[in-house]
Amino acid sequence: MDIAEWRKKIDELDRKMVELLNERAKAAQEIGRLKRSTAMPIYEPDREKKIFENVKAVNQGPLSSLDVTQVFERIIDIMRNLQKNEIVADEKQKLSGGTEFDVDVNE
Amino acid sequence: MDIAEWRKKIDELDRKMVELLNERAKAAQEIGRLKRSTAMPIYEPDREKKIFENVKAVNQGPLSSLDVTQVFERIIDIMRNLQKNEIVADEKQKLSGGTEFDVDVNE
Repeated sequence: MDIAEWRKKIDELDRKMVELLNERAKAAQEIGRLKRSTAMPIYEPDREKKIFENVKAVNQGPLSSLDVTQVFERIIDIMRNLQKNEIVADEKQKLSGGTEFDVDVNE
Repeated sequence: MDIAEWRKKIDELDRKMVELLNERAKAAQEIGRLKRSTAMPIYEPDREKKIFENVKAVNQGPLSSLDVTQVFERIIDIMRNLQKNEIVADEKQKLSGGTEFDVDVNE
């Protein structure tokens, strides 16, 4: 395979990764909703620790544990903000009676 | 689905993502080898721009373009280091006659 062909493969892998990231975001949103209804905190260090343990355990390389951890630090950060923003949107919606802030801030 | 079930789903998505990341790393290593043999530079801003365009184009949300871009900034950074480290390992191997540095630094 030449460079152009490898890059085509990378673009395809990236497409799949974006899909998985969005599936993960949807799951995080669902968890955010469940957390809100049970007044659970958004930031749960134990759960985040487990996520890192999971990704390191399934990693078979060539990426190192550190590489994989660094990617997931970014992913978790973004997912946490997604849950936070939803809570803010939800609070605003409640305050405004559901008219002015009817749109999800993540749309 | 309750929180535990959503988390199981997330762990499974993460497992798939780690797999794709490693497949991407292998492809980046192959490109690194091809770059070395043709003396091409590791850092290619035009190619990186195209990667960002690709991931933004295929993104269907709920993640924003910015979210996706931030994840891929981290991924590209790691892949670039992977290619750089391989070149360093390769140079060292040449200098030492292939004995002392026979091991890939990314292992």
